[in-house]
Amino acid sequence: MTQILTTTDPRTGARSDTDITATTDAELDDIVAAAAAAAADIAGRGRDWRAGLLEAMADELEADRAGLVETAASETGLTDARLNGELTRTTYQLRLFAEAVREGSFLEAAIDHAGDTPMGAQPDVRRMLLPLGPVAVFGSSNFPFAFSVPGGDTASALAAGNPVIAKAHSAHLLTSRASYRALRRGAEKVGAPAGTIGIVYGQQPGARLVARAEIAAVGFTGSLGAASRLMEIIAERDTPIPFYGELQSVNPLLITAAALEARSAEIASGLAVSVTGSAGQLCTKPGVAFVPAGEAGERFAADVVAAMTGVDAGVLLNDRVLSSFREAEKELEAAPGVTSLLGSPDAAGDGFTVAPRVLRVDAGDVTPAHTAEAFGPLVLLVTYRDDAELERALAAVPDSLTVSTHAEPSDLAWLQGMLPTLEKRAGRLVYNGFPTGVRVGWAQHHGGPWPATNTIHTSVGITAIRRFLRPFAWQNAPEGLLPEELRDGYRGVPRRVDGALEPAQ
Amino acid sequence: MTQILTTTDPRTGARSDTDITATTDAELDDIVAAAAAAAADIAGRGRDWRAGLLEAMADELEADRAGLVETAASETGLTDARLNGELTRTTYQLRLFAEAVREGSFLEAAIDHAGDTPMGAQPDVRRMLLPLGPVAVFGSSNFPFAFSVPGGDTASALAAGNPVIAKAHSAHLLTSRASYRALRRGAEKVGAPAGTIGIVYGQQPGARLVARAEIAAVGFTGSLGAASRLMEIIAERDTPIPFYGELQSVNPLLITAAALEARSAEIASGLAVSVTGSAGQLCTKPGVAFVPAGEAGERFAADVVAAMTGVDAGVLLNDRVLSSFREAEKELEAAPGVTSLLGSPDAAGDGFTVAPRVLRVDAGDVTPAHTAEAFGPLVLLVTYRDDAELERALAAVPDSLTVSTHAEPSDLAWLQGMLPTLEKRAGRLVYNGFPTGVRVGWAQHHGGPWPATNTIHTSVGITAIRRFLRPFAWQNAPEGLLPEELRDGYRGVPRRVDGALEPAQ
Repeated sequence: MTQILTTTDPRTGARSDTDITATTDAELDDIVAAAAAAAADIAGRGRDWRAGLLEAMADELEADRAGLVETAASETGLTDARLNGELTRTTYQLRLFAEAVREGSFLEAAIDHAGDTPMGAQPDVRRMLLPLGPVAVFGSSNFPFAFSVPGGDTASALAAGNPVIAKAHSAHLLTSRASYRALRRGAEKVGAPAGTIGIVYGQQPGARLVARAEIAAVGFTGSLGAASRLMEIIAERDTPIPFYGELQSVNPLLITAAALEARSAEIASGLAVSVTGSAGQLCTKPGVAFVPAGEAGERFAADVVAAMTGVDAGVLLNDRVLSSFREAEKELEAAPGVTSLLGSPDAAGDGFTVAPRVLRVDAGDVTPAHTAEAFGPLVLLVTYRDDAELERALAAVPDSLTVSTHAEPSDLAWLQGMLPTLEKRAGRLVYNGFPTGVRVGWAQHHGGPWPATNTIHTSVGITAIRRFLRPFAWQNAPEGLLPEELRDGYRGVPRRVDGALEPAQ
Repeated sequence: MTQILTTTDPRTGARSDTDITATTDAELDDIVAAAAAAAADIAGRGRDWRAGLLEAMADELEADRAGLVETAASETGLTDARLNGELTRTTYQLRLFAEAVREGSFLEAAIDHAGDTPMGAQPDVRRMLLPLGPVAVFGSSNFPFAFSVPGGDTASALAAGNPVIAKAHSAHLLTSRASYRALRRGAEKVGAPAGTIGIVYGQQPGARLVARAEIAAVGFTGSLGAASRLMEIIAERDTPIPFYGELQSVNPLLITAAALEARSAEIASGLAVSVTGSAGQLCTKPGVAFVPAGEAGERFAADVVAAMTGVDAGVLLNDRVLSSFREAEKELEAAPGVTSLLGSPDAAGDGFTVAPRVLRVDAGDVTPAHTAEAFGPLVLLVTYRDDAELERALAAVPDSLTVSTHAEPSDLAWLQGMLPTLEKRAGRLVYNGFPTGVRVGWAQHHGGPWPATNTIHTSVGITAIRRFLRPFAWQNAPEGLLPEELRDGYRGVPRRVDGALEPAQ
């Protein structure tokens, strides 16, 4: 039976039918078969072609910019400015991966020539990374472009040489379809096989996709609950596959007394922007800020409240995000020692609109009940009197994607002492800045200890490509069986030859 | 209550008490606490110190060579020649990792300086890999050195900067303890903290080790069954941790008609050595060889039988390996269409001695019942009449660590056509050679699709180090908070700076 899917405008709360139906099992068969066929086809094409594919996809997204942004705005409530920025980030990301594909370091090409070693005569061994196979991508609600159908998981999986089947997010179905169509047009422009990019609609079809034998890996951005359901499906498979989940994050921020003395107002206004941008619905939103107790800390809290009072109410992405936020707000207000400095859980506007919240608690009162992720425009200020209080309260914060500090040069020795602890608790340390606005680049790491992610990998930046590759070694293979990049005469990629790095020429 | 552990000499089957007792919970507390303390300590020492640690450990193993080999021979039944070779491999491995630690590429150091990009002004971001934390190592029965207490998992985990707690294998407890003591002497020589290397005795204590919160990863070489039990323990942890398992492998070998015509006898004698070396107890032993049907194939089979008839009976490692081998032999003989060309399941000698086995089946008869791993000196010859038969029978072989081919230049086009299939089925392709004797080097990959391993990583070669590291990014961090390798003036390791590779100077 055909199941018609709906979409909701979070600005008004109005729900309407789309012309999209849930993917049937027969359709899923075709999509998965096409992806498997595409995997074999793409593997035979060169890196240059693959870079061109990514660039053509970026071009097609760019060509449909106005339509994509309008559709996404109606499904997510995010502002046009934010969505335009996100789309720019998305096309930039595709182009940067194209650059990395051409550069070729990601292949980790290595050659150990045959010869005598301390272990005696040894054979010729050559190693390189190969694509894993079709990748299923589950995007997030809060980034309809950059972490969804055309986002980082898709870009890195394609860059690695894999076909991608995206699961359309239920909160932005039309945006997902429009993005998919742009990617497909790009693929067609460079003559890619039909299964290079696919899309699946509906929760159950998405779950069934993960169970399919042909799927070689899953990229996921979303909640721990949804991730757990998919990981259970993977556990039931005959062949286990990697699941790369970006799951949740509280992102503690530590402010020193010296930093407050030097630039309290500046930090307060920065924090307000970081907490309320995109209505606080960012995985890197600082959810807990540690502030020195006393007069300076109170002035800082007042500054934060003042800065956030001036911020427009934000629209949450969908009714699930709204109800989770309401629940988190209420639980936090009920936790021991918490006082509200701004807003109330009853404040309501049109659709899924909410008002920013500032809450406060003494560090001595902090328990895990105070440090659960509240996905929305909310920050908890934790006032601490000394290092012991700070460290004890920090220990109650779950490991996160990021940890940030605002400090002065005079704090350096103190920070150096804290560093081993901070490095264990997150995947990125931000100094005198805010964790939101994740740079896409070669040196980025967007990951962290559990429950921030479930692996040692990143979902942002060039090294995200490593998730969708596997090493392979060829022993004594004649030239005709080796990939181009491992042949003796080839110098187009950096390689490690007999232990020494050789740059490309 | 103190539980005294026993050891068995597989050459005689004689079992005797050791002076080793199962690790108690209180002892485990101390071992784990010492490892956690060592992790923090080691992190503060430089790469040069760490390389020296590995070298000192190699020196101490070498200094105790005679004693280690004698103890291992009495517990494993492996020959002195084999054990001496394995110990050489083990110390070579430690020294090669020391070289890699000094070289520093494994850190994947990268710097994106602050500046304008197509995404606007961006912060300074620097990325490098950090040690994961204490690693539990579960070694194998068949490599008492190279894949056990002082083996590749230990070497790569230490090279990455992590303390290691080894679980002593029940089949070579005394060897494990003597190896551990050598490693500890090496650690003491360079002033390493006490918890740098630890050891745990007994099955239950090993299981409890994996459950401990302080353990950050597990390296494992052994059976799928034992791996599953440990993975279940990990699934129950509050914090999941990576489990790197090297599990099982059948290692199919494909022989073409042209290869038989050119060098049938040579391939037959090579196969006999590869199947019977170490009594066939190697994860890379070729278990199934595909041979062209007809007269040349029959001559080849006769040559294999002749070569293996001349081979001494082998001693299996322990009673579990013996009973598994007997069961595998019987199941294989009972499978449809199988005929025995050499040996019988009833052949018995002293202790756990077994005789080599050669069996044969037509490719048309092959089912998964024919292609289970038989850990011991056994090979199944599969005679095929054409490509279709070969491909169908090959599909019944589980994915493996390796796939090997014996072919001639005239087979190149045919092999190129098979290549995509072969690359999907294994982690290493061996051309005109045998998969046993895994080279330790920069370009090695010892891993494969499930059930060969459960991850996209290797357990042999320098890149094995990546398993025990996690990326970390520093944003706008002052020099004093950065690791030495990420400071602007440092040039001691290769780095990626603003997207371009810079060699070390």
